[in-house]
Amino acid sequence: MITYTPVKVRYGETDKMGIVYHANYLLYLEDGRTDFLEQAGFPYASIEERGYLCPAYSAELSWRAPLRYGDDAVVETRVIANGGTKTTYQQRVFRAGDDPAVDKPVAEGRVTACAVNRDTFKPVSIKRELPDLYERYNALIEPEA
Amino acid sequence: MITYTPVKVRYGETDKMGIVYHANYLLYLEDGRTDFLEQAGFPYASIEERGYLCPAYSAELSWRAPLRYGDDAVVETRVIANGGTKTTYQQRVFRAGDDPAVDKPVAEGRVTACAVNRDTFKPVSIKRELPDLYERYNALIEPEA
Amino acid sequence: MITYTPVKVRYGETDKMGIVYHANYLLYLEDGRTDFLEQAGFPYASIEERGYLCPAYSAELSWRAPLRYGDDAVVETRVIANGGTKTTYQQRVFRAGDDPAVDKPVAEGRVTACAVNRDTFKPVSIKRELPDLYERYNALIEPEA
Amino acid sequence: MITYTPVKVRYGETDKMGIVYHANYLLYLEDGRTDFLEQAGFPYASIEERGYLCPAYSAELSWRAPLRYGDDAVVETRVIANGGTKTTYQQRVFRAGDDPAVDKPVAEGRVTACAVNRDTFKPVSIKRELPDLYERYNALIEPEA
Repeated sequence: MITYTPVKVRYGETDKMGIVYHANYLLYLEDGRTDFLEQAGFPYASIEERGYLCPAYSAELSWRAPLRYGDDAVVETRVIANGGTKTTYQQRVFRAGDDPAVDKPVAEGRVTACAVNRDTFKPVSIKRELPDLYERYNALIEPEA
Repeated sequence: MITYTPVKVRYGETDKMGIVYHANYLLYLEDGRTDFLEQAGFPYASIEERGYLCPAYSAELSWRAPLRYGDDAVVETRVIANGGTKTTYQQRVFRAGDDPAVDKPVAEGRVTACAVNRDTFKPVSIKRELPDLYERYNALIEPEA
Repeated sequence: MITYTPVKVRYGETDKMGIVYHANYLLYLEDGRTDFLEQAGFPYASIEERGYLCPAYSAELSWRAPLRYGDDAVVETRVIANGGTKTTYQQRVFRAGDDPAVDKPVAEGRVTACAVNRDTFKPVSIKRELPDLYERYNALIEPEA
Repeated sequence: MITYTPVKVRYGETDKMGIVYHANYLLYLEDGRTDFLEQAGFPYASIEERGYLCPAYSAELSWRAPLRYGDDAVVETRVIANGGTKTTYQQRVFRAGDDPAVDKPVAEGRVTACAVNRDTFKPVSIKRELPDLYERYNALIEPEA
């Protein structure tokens, strides 16, 4: 499954360069992952209700072209790896209207989240403790773009 | 007691106008209140440990001159009212080096926080449940600038 | 004209209280004003292109009930005053699905923006320099809720 | 040269997990690079005044342990590569009081910035256009930790 999530640039997300501040792309990527999990039938809030958190573990990001206030963007999201504890997403940000098959993203990243126990923050096995989510991830894995 | 808390403008706090985005002044004001409570001997974290939260209840803000990246600022903080449940701070933001007695602030505000129970979010009487904090506030009240 | 702008709470907009951090409501209110200006036929970006900026001048805010991650909200926006230089918006934030006619907002505010010259940051008369925008505001004014 | 920049966790930087939201570490890393450039004698603002911007080009980040409200942290910053156009920093975030020689960082990253022309956003050769900065970076390069 590959999801496409629209994002609207906020004024306060720009910086004095006149472009979206680099850290704010992590908010856009999270919008994409939130949407992905909803479309997968596992809204992130429901995972937390079951006693788990999925904090960010690692990320690789690159910024290739600026987004500006008034720009509309789309975040493309897919899961490319699903370990026992960690899940890796590849995500690409396009200008709205661009074609992901031919156009270059303005930014892209790989973000790995790690399931942990809500109270102890200790890593937990998704495979063992959230087997339905684990199977769902497996069924949705896509090759990297 | 009047406290003065230094603040350094971050790049990511500016917007495409080239100045600090207006919402970010609320972060600076919170820096001031955090510092005030530390200097008062009641670090905010210790209030939360006792089972209470103090979310913002209301605020009046005005912005009079821009702050830019590289600017250093100082947040002046005083308590001007202490009710049973709510506490009102007056806060003014000055450029570092300016004299609060004669120079105009670049921004100012009054922020009222309301003590609530951590679990229920219901308002609680500071006077009854945190009497030491209530007395401390009373002892520290200053007239409005 | 009264506009209603949907807002989705981001994870990163919550704080350790588990609710939306108070400063982030200013982002939601700006979403509402951005939308209002688009619907009025004067997208804010077009105002900047004509050489003007409209920084926040003052705000009065109150927070009455918490929003949480996963909540959907709606920002109600109207212009209640239109001076030569300043424009005042009244804005109320409701939970999605609530009825603004009977339900209480979770937060509300009045935000006044001031038109300034892009290069000098000196206030300018909207009435004189942006008469089409000035007339449009006048035509759209609503009584306060 | 290796610099150590103190950072204080803001309430609004935490999220509903009760820990610093992952994106906000990019603000802390930027605090470290801002400080590094100041200590190197090339405040970032002075680079912009000469007509250049240094937007983020790529980043690799990892988060290993949470920071919470009230925590004090220190950002360790060094330049590990200096190309004609791009500069790569290695940065590690420690709890205040921890010893970078023996203790593990709570987060770390490599951030590459790319010099561009302020007006065109086209990459420029630091080596050719900002030779004094280029030489300074070269003199300050450190091996990766």
